[in-house]
Amino acid sequence: MTAVTTARIGIKHGAGGRVMRRLIEDVLVDRESAIAGALDDGAAIPIGDRWLIFTTDAHVIQPIVFPGGDIGRLSICGTVNDLAMMGATEPLGLSCAVILEEGFEVDALRETRQSMTAACREAGARIVTGDTKVMGRGDVDRLVITTAGVGIADRVVRDSGLQPGDVILVTGTVGDHGIAIMAARHELEFGGTLHSDVAPLNGLVRAALDAGGDAIVAMKDPTRGGVAGALHEFAAKSGVGIVLNERAVPVREPVRAAAELLGIDPPLIANEGKALIGVRRAAADAVLRALRDHPLGRDAAIVAGCSSDFAGSVVVDTGFGRRVLPEADGELLPRIC
Amino acid sequence: MTAVTTARIGIKHGAGGRVMRRLIEDVLVDRESAIAGALDDGAAIPIGDRWLIFTTDAHVIQPIVFPGGDIGRLSICGTVNDLAMMGATEPLGLSCAVILEEGFEVDALRETRQSMTAACREAGARIVTGDTKVMGRGDVDRLVITTAGVGIADRVVRDSGLQPGDVILVTGTVGDHGIAIMAARHELEFGGTLHSDVAPLNGLVRAALDAGGDAIVAMKDPTRGGVAGALHEFAAKSGVGIVLNERAVPVREPVRAAAELLGIDPPLIANEGKALIGVRRAAADAVLRALRDHPLGRDAAIVAGCSSDFAGSVVVDTGFGRRVLPEADGELLPRIC
Repeated sequence: MTAVTTARIGIKHGAGGRVMRRLIEDVLVDRESAIAGALDDGAAIPIGDRWLIFTTDAHVIQPIVFPGGDIGRLSICGTVNDLAMMGATEPLGLSCAVILEEGFEVDALRETRQSMTAACREAGARIVTGDTKVMGRGDVDRLVITTAGVGIADRVVRDSGLQPGDVILVTGTVGDHGIAIMAARHELEFGGTLHSDVAPLNGLVRAALDAGGDAIVAMKDPTRGGVAGALHEFAAKSGVGIVLNERAVPVREPVRAAAELLGIDPPLIANEGKALIGVRRAAADAVLRALRDHPLGRDAAIVAGCSSDFAGSVVVDTGFGRRVLPEADGELLPRIC
Repeated sequence: MTAVTTARIGIKHGAGGRVMRRLIEDVLVDRESAIAGALDDGAAIPIGDRWLIFTTDAHVIQPIVFPGGDIGRLSICGTVNDLAMMGATEPLGLSCAVILEEGFEVDALRETRQSMTAACREAGARIVTGDTKVMGRGDVDRLVITTAGVGIADRVVRDSGLQPGDVILVTGTVGDHGIAIMAARHELEFGGTLHSDVAPLNGLVRAALDAGGDAIVAMKDPTRGGVAGALHEFAAKSGVGIVLNERAVPVREPVRAAAELLGIDPPLIANEGKALIGVRRAAADAVLRALRDHPLGRDAAIVAGCSSDFAGSVVVDTGFGRRVLPEADGELLPRIC
């Protein structure tokens, strides 16, 4: 592990890439008390012969309402999805801590809350506890929401379970959330067809787990840092090499066009309604069928394979050759989620 | 319940009093999914024949380092104490979501983290999961930390268990935290003797529960809104009248002097290392002795009694007569915790 050498926090420390991981490992993780899985999507705490999954996310997205969703929906889905990625597809409860800027509109707060309620209903989740703080004008930008969640898993799906020969599926199109936020932020017009994919994935993940069982060995939602960041975490934690088949990655046409215009590779762009699922090869087709049978998984595809070569690294097979897949490190926008 | 009629959020919506409760009840609590206890210090979720206690707090205190503590220690103690107030005195795990302003000093973050580690050690708690976000310069004031926590309780101690005849104990002196922050904020000099009481109370609460058992029927830490706010919540939720014996409330002399100078009644001032404990009268002396035997409970005292008169209200007996005890509603400082 490399130490943080800069004196001040930069935007890249929140970008979901290598620089952020270094900050977390060097400064934020308490090695004295760290337990296995603390750097997964959440923690797994043994309770009897099952696992209590516990996870948290701060949501600082700007603007708070965007095409396809808002900070309320994002907060619920972010935490429901992190629970699901660890194998807890039926949330026991969510917490919601709201930080408001003095002067924030009460009606906007009401709408945010209604959006949270709707997302909870989709996910079969409930907010069971919360906190409310107000900061003075100029001390915080409008509204920040931190959610946490608890759920029970019979088996924990970690990011470290991949072996050579395994394949990786993505549950749908890539890049929708990040491109929609960038377009909204910069008031770019791409014909109004860009919208966030923010959605609760616990039902979809349950379908995959039902179909794949123990053959499902890794799961991660590619949010900040995109598919690239998630694959790098898989590779590092599992100690395998990963080959991403670029032509197999589903990307909606308007997203591809916007990404090209903005000069960003779709696998580097954030998603909020997609999962990467690592599966033993023998079970891959059954899991793929189960995903495609679910409304949120129609575009699911097998996109990558694991190898004992170049362990810990991720390469892209473009169809014309191979190159190393970089990680997003601060070149993307802050406050994407 | 009265609806919120103002169009915009004010500082008083975060002050811990009636105006905040109205915002929470009217706008933030989802009646569709609300469960009993959602407005307690945390939620209680049945797991087998025990309870999973789940709680969250956002910490926006300014300045982030203050006499007697810092935002790191406050974050750990706030969540450990909320768990303890519900009867979970051995935390299973804490989460920590950090929001950083671009430009924040990495060394200050490191010191905050070390303070969290030290507080965790005192409380026998661990941070098991977290999240890190960065907002641009001017989008957030330096550092905000939201913690959540989970613990197991055999019996849930709610705020609603008081009956006429019960007494209420405070575990120590009142007003230390709030006065220390006000003095630090305004650079007031009171001879350097003002410091926050921020401390993890789970060990002290365990001692009280061991001594009092089922005779302990209500617990709350009087943070924002102070002792007054907590007693009002007790009165409202339990449907009893509460008489606070003003002369029995322990207040350190420099705190009393500073409060007088600032024109604030000590029961209205925030604490971060004190609990109010409601007990059946027959067990009060045993619980008091147990509290006083603990280093954090030396100044414990019986300060109030419950009555069937004026149900839902709180009055102060000054020794010369009785008056209604008001709630803090925005006249105090924002960002006290």
